[in-house]
Amino acid sequence: MDPTSLIGATSIIVAGLCTSLGCLAPAIAEGRAVATALTSLAQQPDASATITRTLFVGLAMIESTAIYSFVVSMILIFANPFWNAAIAEVAAK
Amino acid sequence: MDPTSLIGATSIIVAGLCTSLGCLAPAIAEGRAVATALTSLAQQPDASATITRTLFVGLAMIESTAIYSFVVSMILIFANPFWNAAIAEVAAK
Amino acid sequence: MDPTSLIGATSIIVAGLCTSLGCLAPAIAEGRAVATALTSLAQQPDASATITRTLFVGLAMIESTAIYSFVVSMILIFANPFWNAAIAEVAAK
Amino acid sequence: MDPTSLIGATSIIVAGLCTSLGCLAPAIAEGRAVATALTSLAQQPDASATITRTLFVGLAMIESTAIYSFVVSMILIFANPFWNAAIAEVAAK
Amino acid sequence: MDPTSLIGATSIIVAGLCTSLGCLAPAIAEGRAVATALTSLAQQPDASATITRTLFVGLAMIESTAIYSFVVSMILIFANPFWNAAIAEVAAK
Amino acid sequence: MDPTSLIGATSIIVAGLCTSLGCLAPAIAEGRAVATALTSLAQQPDASATITRTLFVGLAMIESTAIYSFVVSMILIFANPFWNAAIAEVAAK
Amino acid sequence: MDPTSLIGATSIIVAGLCTSLGCLAPAIAEGRAVATALTSLAQQPDASATITRTLFVGLAMIESTAIYSFVVSMILIFANPFWNAAIAEVAAK
Amino acid sequence: MDPTSLIGATSIIVAGLCTSLGCLAPAIAEGRAVATALTSLAQQPDASATITRTLFVGLAMIESTAIYSFVVSMILIFANPFWNAAIAEVAAK
Amino acid sequence: MDPTSLIGATSIIVAGLCTSLGCLAPAIAEGRAVATALTSLAQQPDASATITRTLFVGLAMIESTAIYSFVVSMILIFANPFWNAAIAEVAAK
Amino acid sequence: MDPTSLIGATSIIVAGLCTSLGCLAPAIAEGRAVATALTSLAQQPDASATITRTLFVGLAMIESTAIYSFVVSMILIFANPFWNAAIAEVAAK
Amino acid sequence: MDPTSLIGATSIIVAGLCTSLGCLAPAIAEGRAVATALTSLAQQPDASATITRTLFVGLAMIESTAIYSFVVSMILIFANPFWNAAIAEVAAK
Amino acid sequence: MDPTSLIGATSIIVAGLCTSLGCLAPAIAEGRAVATALTSLAQQPDASATITRTLFVGLAMIESTAIYSFVVSMILIFANPFWNAAIAEVAAK
Amino acid sequence: MDPTSLIGATSIIVAGLCTSLGCLAPAIAEGRAVATALTSLAQQPDASATITRTLFVGLAMIESTAIYSFVVSMILIFANPFWNAAIAEVAAK
Amino acid sequence: MDPTSLIGATSIIVAGLCTSLGCLAPAIAEGRAVATALTSLAQQPDASATITRTLFVGLAMIESTAIYSFVVSMILIFANPFWNAAIAEVAAK
Repeated sequence: MDPTSLIGATSIIVAGLCTSLGCLAPAIAEGRAVATALTSLAQQPDASATITRTLFVGLAMIESTAIYSFVVSMILIFANPFWNAAIAEVAAK
Repeated sequence: MDPTSLIGATSIIVAGLCTSLGCLAPAIAEGRAVATALTSLAQQPDASATITRTLFVGLAMIESTAIYSFVVSMILIFANPFWNAAIAEVAAK
Repeated sequence: MDPTSLIGATSIIVAGLCTSLGCLAPAIAEGRAVATALTSLAQQPDASATITRTLFVGLAMIESTAIYSFVVSMILIFANPFWNAAIAEVAAK
Repeated sequence: MDPTSLIGATSIIVAGLCTSLGCLAPAIAEGRAVATALTSLAQQPDASATITRTLFVGLAMIESTAIYSFVVSMILIFANPFWNAAIAEVAAK
Repeated sequence: MDPTSLIGATSIIVAGLCTSLGCLAPAIAEGRAVATALTSLAQQPDASATITRTLFVGLAMIESTAIYSFVVSMILIFANPFWNAAIAEVAAK
Repeated sequence: MDPTSLIGATSIIVAGLCTSLGCLAPAIAEGRAVATALTSLAQQPDASATITRTLFVGLAMIESTAIYSFVVSMILIFANPFWNAAIAEVAAK
Repeated sequence: MDPTSLIGATSIIVAGLCTSLGCLAPAIAEGRAVATALTSLAQQPDASATITRTLFVGLAMIESTAIYSFVVSMILIFANPFWNAAIAEVAAK
Repeated sequence: MDPTSLIGATSIIVAGLCTSLGCLAPAIAEGRAVATALTSLAQQPDASATITRTLFVGLAMIESTAIYSFVVSMILIFANPFWNAAIAEVAAK
Repeated sequence: MDPTSLIGATSIIVAGLCTSLGCLAPAIAEGRAVATALTSLAQQPDASATITRTLFVGLAMIESTAIYSFVVSMILIFANPFWNAAIAEVAAK
Repeated sequence: MDPTSLIGATSIIVAGLCTSLGCLAPAIAEGRAVATALTSLAQQPDASATITRTLFVGLAMIESTAIYSFVVSMILIFANPFWNAAIAEVAAK
Repeated sequence: MDPTSLIGATSIIVAGLCTSLGCLAPAIAEGRAVATALTSLAQQPDASATITRTLFVGLAMIESTAIYSFVVSMILIFANPFWNAAIAEVAAK
Repeated sequence: MDPTSLIGATSIIVAGLCTSLGCLAPAIAEGRAVATALTSLAQQPDASATITRTLFVGLAMIESTAIYSFVVSMILIFANPFWNAAIAEVAAK
Repeated sequence: MDPTSLIGATSIIVAGLCTSLGCLAPAIAEGRAVATALTSLAQQPDASATITRTLFVGLAMIESTAIYSFVVSMILIFANPFWNAAIAEVAAK
Repeated sequence: MDPTSLIGATSIIVAGLCTSLGCLAPAIAEGRAVATALTSLAQQPDASATITRTLFVGLAMIESTAIYSFVVSMILIFANPFWNAAIAEVAAK
């Protein structure tokens, strides 16, 4: 296995797994938060403003961890320093 | 295993796993959110407007994590920089 | 293992796993949503219109993640760019 | 391992696993839906028409994901483009 | 490993696993449905006709997924196109 | 590993696993159904006829999935077409 | 690894695993059934005849799945057609 | 690896695992049955005769599955037909 | 790997695993039984004689499965027929 | 595999896994905290100031563990001392 | 790998795993028993003598399974017949 | 694989896994503590001072275990004695 | 791999795993015992002397299983008979 | 793989895993203890002195198991007798 394709194949595998695994927990957590928000709304309709605002802050916080993983995947696909080094090494031969 | 087919096979594997794994948690989470929405509707039919609106915002938020995975799969199948480099390398020989 | 059969075998494996794994969570989630809908209907028969409508929107949303996986499988079986490239490469020899 | 038997063996494995794995979740989900329907019927016998109708729509929706997997298995056994290509390649020699 | 025995061994493995795995979830689901039916009968003996009918429809629906797996196993043992091709190839030599 | 012993060893492994795995879920499900029947009998002794009848129908339904697995094992041990072909091939040499 | 010892070792492994795995679920299920019977007896001592009878029928039904596995193990140890064939083949040399 | 030691090592491994794995579930199940018996005794001290009798029948039933595994282990250590054949084969040389 | 050390190493591994695995479930089960006994004592101090007696019978029954595993380990370390045969074989050379 | 590409590939794998795994638990924990906050708000709307403040402190604390993992990934991609040493070693040749 | 170091390395591995694994369940079970004892004490302070005595008998019973594992580890480290045989064999050369 | 790159690659892998795995449990535990604090605040707003103080002490205690893992990772990346020895050995050649 | 380093590497691995695995269950069990003690104290403050004394006896009992594992690790690092034998063997050459 | 780097790599791996795994359970257990303390404080604010004191004793007890693992890691990194022996052996050449 030559170095270039090793780096390429590794980047593909990790980019895919990083996004798919890294999105599991945020999705579950968001589902839980939304579900609790709906229960709370049904129980205390008068506090809907506070509940909705807290829900949105919380969703943004949770979504941030999904975005960390997505960012790492995008870096590995489109701005990968190891791939660039491997390409440069091939071009230099 | 020559580099081109290695990159190709890896892309196929990751594209498939990324979508199938990345859709597990959003589906579970959406099922939970929908289930809670139905419970809340049955408990407090008067708040159906607020509940439905919050549900749809939440579903969109959760669906976004599934779409991240689907986007990565589509990039790996149809706009894969590593595959393009491998094809170009073969063509250059 | 020659490149063509490698790509072919990989596509078969991923197409099968992608559909079978990708359908697990939507099925579970739909079962949950339907079960909650039935509970809610038994508890509040008067709200059946709202409950049914919300259920169908939710089922469509959940089914969409199953369809993402099915679409990826169909692409891998019938419109696979990597297989086409491998076939073309063999034909060109 | 010659290409033809590789493709054949892979198709057999995936066809079997795809059906058996892909039927797990729908069976569980249908069991859950049926169980809830029975509970609801015992709790609110007057709403049996609505409950039964919603149950059947839901079961059809869930069964559809099992059928996706079964369809992929049948395609892999009886209409497999990769196997056809491998057979044609052998016949052409 | 010659192609014929590879195809044969693979078919045996998959036929066995497909049936044994594919029967797990239906058995669990049927047990759940029957258990709920018994609870419902004890709670509402007057609705026994509706409950029994819904139970049998549901059991048939769940059993269908077990039968999909059993059918695939039987096809792999007694009507396996890949095995037929391998046998024909040997006979043709 | 010669073909005959490969087929033989594979059949032994699959026959054993198929029965042992395939009996897990039916046993669990029957235990659940029996347990619920006992609870229901204690709660509503007057409905014992209906409960017992439904229990036996359900147990037969669940036992059927265990029998599918046992049948596949018996076929693999005593009526195995792949083993017959392997034996015939050896005898023909 | 010569064929005879391969068949022998495989039979030993499968015989042991088949019994030990195949007894897990029946034991759990019987424990559950017995536990529920005890609860029911404490709750409704007057129905002890019906409860005990139903319990014994259920235990026999569950034990049958354990016996399937034990039978397969005994067949593999003492009436194994593959081992007989291997021994005969050695004796024939 | 010569056949004799292969058979010997396999028998050791399977004998140990068969007993240790095969005792997991009976122990858990007996613990559950005993625990429920104690709860029932505390709840209904007057029915202690029936409860104790049912408990002992149940424990004997559960213990039987542990004894199946222990018997298989003892057969493999002290009355192993495969080991006897291997020893005889060595002695015959 | 010579036969003697293979048998020796295998015996060590199995002896250790058999005891450690085989003690998991009895410990859990005894913990459960003791815990329930304590709860029952607190709930019904008058029945302490019956509860204690039933607890000790149950603990002895559960401990028996742990002792099966310990016995198999001791046999493998100090009265191992396979090891004796291997030692005898070495001494005979 | 030459040292440079080994270090590169390892860094890619670990960077991806570290972020995706390290974000699982914080996301789950934040979802739980947000969900409880919403429940508490619905139950005691008057304490919303204290609840919100405690929630934000807690979210910051939990987010810090996700940031530890993200920081390690960034260090491995952009400030990796092992990669720098490998590059320097190559350049020195 | 020479026989002496094989036996030595195996003994180390098994001694460590046997103790660490074999202590998992007793610790959990003792924690459960202690926890229940505390709950019972809080609920029925008058029965503290009976509760404490039963707790200590139970803890000793559970601790015995941990001690079985510890004894096996100590035997493997300090009184290992297989190691002694290997050492003697080396010394005899 | 030369020693330097082996040490380097191992350090990268362990540094990443140590942080990501070691942060799982603290995050979960902190989420649990924060969630309970919010519940307690909603239930007993008057004790908010004591609750908040105990919460912060507890969070610091839990965070300390996450910091142990982070410290080990940083030591492995920036103050690794094994890497220093390997580098020194290379420089000494 | 020479014997000395094999024994050394094995001892390191087992020492680390033995401590880390062997501390899991005691920590969980102590957490449970402490948690129950706190609940009991809140429920019955008058029995705090008995509760605290029983808690400390229980914690010591549970801690003992953690100490077994720690002792085995320390023996493997600082008083390892296999390592001593290997060192002596090297020194004797 | 030369002995020095084998010992080094093994030490790195075990040091990292030992800390990260060994901190999982203490963190979970501390989270549980803190959570229960907060619940108890909210339920019985008058017993805050006893609760806090018992909590701190318990946390110290649980933290001790985490510190065992951390100590083993530190010993493996900075006071490793096997590494010292390997270094001395290299220096002696």
